Amino acid sequence: MNKRPVIGITLGDPAGIGPEVVLGALADGDVYDRCIPVVIGHEGVLRRVSRASGVSAGEIITVNSPRAATGDRSKVEVVHVETPGMDDIAPGVVSAEGGAAANAFIKRACELGLADEIDAITTAPINKESLRAAGVEHIGHTEMLACYLDQPNDASGSFVTRSGVGRAQGLSPLTLFITQNMRIFFLSRHYSLRQAIDYITQQHVYDFIRRVHGAMTEFGFADPKIGLAALNPHASDGGQFGTEERDHLVPAARHAREEGIDVSDPIGADSVFNMALEGRFDCVISLYHDQGHIAAKTRDFHGTVTATLGLPVLRTSVDHGTAFDIAWQGKANPISMKMAILAAVDMLEKRA
Amino acid sequence: MNKRPVIGITLGDPAGIGPEVVLGALADGDVYDRCIPVVIGHEGVLRRVSRASGVSAGEIITVNSPRAATGDRSKVEVVHVETPGMDDIAPGVVSAEGGAAANAFIKRACELGLADEIDAITTAPINKESLRAAGVEHIGHTEMLACYLDQPNDASGSFVTRSGVGRAQGLSPLTLFITQNMRIFFLSRHYSLRQAIDYITQQHVYDFIRRVHGAMTEFGFADPKIGLAALNPHASDGGQFGTEERDHLVPAARHAREEGIDVSDPIGADSVFNMALEGRFDCVISLYHDQGHIAAKTRDFHGTVTATLGLPVLRTSVDHGTAFDIAWQGKANPISMKMAILAAVDMLEKRA
Repeated sequence: MNKRPVIGITLGDPAGIGPEVVLGALADGDVYDRCIPVVIGHEGVLRRVSRASGVSAGEIITVNSPRAATGDRSKVEVVHVETPGMDDIAPGVVSAEGGAAANAFIKRACELGLADEIDAITTAPINKESLRAAGVEHIGHTEMLACYLDQPNDASGSFVTRSGVGRAQGLSPLTLFITQNMRIFFLSRHYSLRQAIDYITQQHVYDFIRRVHGAMTEFGFADPKIGLAALNPHASDGGQFGTEERDHLVPAARHAREEGIDVSDPIGADSVFNMALEGRFDCVISLYHDQGHIAAKTRDFHGTVTATLGLPVLRTSVDHGTAFDIAWQGKANPISMKMAILAAVDMLEKRA
Repeated sequence: MNKRPVIGITLGDPAGIGPEVVLGALADGDVYDRCIPVVIGHEGVLRRVSRASGVSAGEIITVNSPRAATGDRSKVEVVHVETPGMDDIAPGVVSAEGGAAANAFIKRACELGLADEIDAITTAPINKESLRAAGVEHIGHTEMLACYLDQPNDASGSFVTRSGVGRAQGLSPLTLFITQNMRIFFLSRHYSLRQAIDYITQQHVYDFIRRVHGAMTEFGFADPKIGLAALNPHASDGGQFGTEERDHLVPAARHAREEGIDVSDPIGADSVFNMALEGRFDCVISLYHDQGHIAAKTRDFHGTVTATLGLPVLRTSVDHGTAFDIAWQGKANPISMKMAILAAVDMLEKRA
């Protein structure tokens, strides 16, 4: 990439800490060294939050197009998204207006991404209750992105929703956690632990290893070294504690290796993440939600960034919530937002 | 405690890295500031390892009794345990002699502990294959300690073994992980993950909370704050992902709180360990082996210490193995051994 990439940063729920952590991240000059950050949100509410929180990153100005942004670190360049109620919205309060605004910002970011006006999206946190109050049917960011980035190919132009109308086709987002130099993919996430264990079959694991290999290759790892976490203590210690390693994980890994993929046999989960931190794996496959989440969040709670791959536009995100209890008070730590923005830049550079 | 406590340090399997990490830990003056370390092992093999590895902690001398040790940092004071084959034992080789020696060191440490000749035991790693070659029937350290510290109350004086002869009565060891300021207890450990989930019943969890509370109180925490990890992602998020929180964990925690125990409701496992690191809990209850192991070992792989409570003598241990591949080469990092010794001192002081 010859010039700085343009990162579109959505403000998230305006009643949460999103706007102030965006301002805080932009107040840190490092971001401008690496990219042209463009805020996608409501100019007025950003000014209100800046005044209330005392967090400033320079003059707030609007730009008509992200590609017209200059990346001048004395300014906060905003693609203004008009959305009602922003003069009255209050910090820390669930509202339909807040949910509608958060949704509108993301939708606009997706449009800009598809139009190649931005190179990646970084998102601030949204509030599920506010989204519900606004009648937004998507469950979370990933579903919204999968929908809005799925270029409609039928006349109605409809999108996937909770009720299933206009189901998106062909997009299958892949969540990646990044903590320090550790990258973690998840075989499954929002399952009960019992369901997650049931999901561990040779076929599912093999397919997932291939997907992870493909995603890593796309992002610039020529021959990625993939660590496979085990399910049972000490990877079952030769079958003493469980059978999933023998019946599913070992055969899936062997099958993938036969096709030239550099994936390990299952390794005890209390070792494999540390091995990634030591640089021995480019990424680790976590078999269930908490396995990789415990590793990432106990290692560096505030330094964990989420990336969503498998979509037409790369997206990174903070991994914290809206923190309504401290919103607009200048207390929120912007380090996660800064790291999420820089993680997007890292990945774009590596891919290029 | 008015004077420095006496810590009996077993050498572990002499063919492993145990002897050199003990020497390395004693070469660090910090240990002598806090305690009188007494090595329980074979004087001759310790000299051999010191020469081979180049690790020295001063003159190696024998003492007849740990209480006669002076704690002079220019010396390594050893309670010599005679055991055959130590002139010929080779680094990194499984042998009956090595297993028999490791067993003899631990047995002697237990005798000294029961005789109040030492205040706590810190153990270097043992090798299960060598133990088996020596015909030692115990599965690991915890079983050996539970046996040798169980003062025999019948005429035969027999101890618990794999074959069940002379079953120990009344001792129920409790494993504690210590990583930085995070303390972790385990509801279960060496179960498959499916078995570990099945073990999570209201009664088991309630009983375990009481045990943990008792152990923490014994070790000087007047009103310990106990964090209870959840099983499912986001503690099941109101029942969306699993039922164990609602059916077992919440009722068990409530029951314990009604009896005045300060235990939390189940908290998402990607948060609860970090909360302990922030000082919000004195300890955390992990529901299965990997849950707490991932947290501890990904946070600080080499800085994790194990303690065994619930026995007549406190024991701490390194959490690494014998590392036969690098034994006697001076490559092994002694930091875990130092931390294990100091963790024992910390706990003795807190209890006093």
